[in-house]
Amino acid sequence: MADKTARILIVGGGFGGVFTALDLAGEGKVTLVSTEDHFLFTPMLYEYLSGEVEAWHIAPQYKELLDERVRFIRGEVTDIDLVSREAGIAGRAERVPYDVLVLAVGGITNYAGVEGAQEHTIPFRKIAHADALRQRMVEALDRVPPDLAPQDARRALTFAVVGAGASGVELSTKMADLLRDAFERRALRGEPRVMVIEMGEEIVPGMGDEIRTFVEDALKESRVEVHTRTRVRRVTATGLSFEHDGELTDLEAAAVVWTGGVRINPLVEKLGLEKDRRGLIVVEPTLQA
Amino acid sequence: MADKTARILIVGGGFGGVFTALDLAGEGKVTLVSTEDHFLFTPMLYEYLSGEVEAWHIAPQYKELLDERVRFIRGEVTDIDLVSREAGIAGRAERVPYDVLVLAVGGITNYAGVEGAQEHTIPFRKIAHADALRQRMVEALDRVPPDLAPQDARRALTFAVVGAGASGVELSTKMADLLRDAFERRALRGEPRVMVIEMGEEIVPGMGDEIRTFVEDALKESRVEVHTRTRVRRVTATGLSFEHDGELTDLEAAAVVWTGGVRINPLVEKLGLEKDRRGLIVVEPTLQA
Repeated sequence: MADKTARILIVGGGFGGVFTALDLAGEGKVTLVSTEDHFLFTPMLYEYLSGEVEAWHIAPQYKELLDERVRFIRGEVTDIDLVSREAGIAGRAERVPYDVLVLAVGGITNYAGVEGAQEHTIPFRKIAHADALRQRMVEALDRVPPDLAPQDARRALTFAVVGAGASGVELSTKMADLLRDAFERRALRGEPRVMVIEMGEEIVPGMGDEIRTFVEDALKESRVEVHTRTRVRRVTATGLSFEHDGELTDLEAAAVVWTGGVRINPLVEKLGLEKDRRGLIVVEPTLQA
Repeated sequence: MADKTARILIVGGGFGGVFTALDLAGEGKVTLVSTEDHFLFTPMLYEYLSGEVEAWHIAPQYKELLDERVRFIRGEVTDIDLVSREAGIAGRAERVPYDVLVLAVGGITNYAGVEGAQEHTIPFRKIAHADALRQRMVEALDRVPPDLAPQDARRALTFAVVGAGASGVELSTKMADLLRDAFERRALRGEPRVMVIEMGEEIVPGMGDEIRTFVEDALKESRVEVHTRTRVRRVTATGLSFEHDGELTDLEAAAVVWTGGVRINPLVEKLGLEKDRRGLIVVEPTLQA
């Protein structure tokens, strides 16, 4: 990049934002904006849930991770003016001007209009989500006295994971293994119940049959109960309702975890750029719009 | 035994009857009456269910098994006259006189007055019962097409075993293992569901904690769903209703197997001998009344 004084604004602190910032440090005046104070190596969030890794292993603070030549602002970019070339950040009067804009915001959780999903499910994208889920698991375990009948322990330790994509299946097997280990350690009777609910015909939709067979075996090994062609209709503070073949089932659950997919970030929706049918920005092969 | 012409009548062809007959052959005129044409080595009926052994391994014909000096009558003893010393056999005009009577009839299945249990459950005491259960398992498997959603396959392959005594727990683990193997071979999705239902506080009631721990582990290993403090209230041709903590649950089941205990044989009930509070004949240390 020729102009080392160009103001480069990177919106989003995931893999795309952070590695762009590290690459461009010194090539311009780089500013990175993220809603979090830390980067997250998301592929290991499952291991964080299980305690195999600590937060500092997978979620370094941006101030430790970023080149000292990168300015970091914690906050949420609420609007971008493509004409005057400046971005507004929630709670900040000062707007951030730029010459080059890097949009690396990613998607947001897609609740698909399911009643109660946003209020009552736990997503699984951030350290805070893993913490919330772990807390629910421990609370549910703590409610089970050692002499509880096995079917009651099973009911009290019922967890539903919505979405059997890669994230949902990895998470549900991890949860089932963790809960079964906890049953063992606490000498509880019976077994926990972890179910994964997929609206498609198949688990891990879009992946090949070889991967699917492998994943099905892993789910069986971890004793995850798989439901396909099933739509979650409602989530409440104490459970969920799901529909399969026209039949609606109500189920109590200690937690409902939502891995049901992503949708376009509202920031992107607002931008006056050409979009494709899915709402994604139409870009050149260089990823430039 | 001094009098080698004494007529010895043995009622019942289980372990007690058969070994008594073999021991006494030649010591008197021994007659054994059994409702079956074969002895059954009941501890291996589980292995017969799974096909690990054949019927001829565990159920030899009495005519092959008994000493040629033992007379065998197939039939059901319906009454015994202790004064005139003769027994009546269903469908036979001729009564069987005896000088010495050996009662080795065992108990009969105790349905404890549960509605529909006698009509709709399968006991597990005879070769014919194992055959009936195996047939039900195969029929249920045959109804599941390979592409059926896993939760539907699980529902179609739901089996309930009533009673978590030694017989119920051994049978339920065997059934679960067999069904899971069949899922594998037929490439069905999901897993079968085998539950064992016990009305007592604990599984294997009356056994020590060490055995109980071992059995609980085996049930978990085989993924049997354990319900304790649960009473079966009704059995129908398509399922059962059971009650736990005042809550009634209706469940479809491919078969309900009854191992719920034994009660006194009606033949014993009718005998004018001194009984204890449980209805058992009061005997001397020599087992003589």
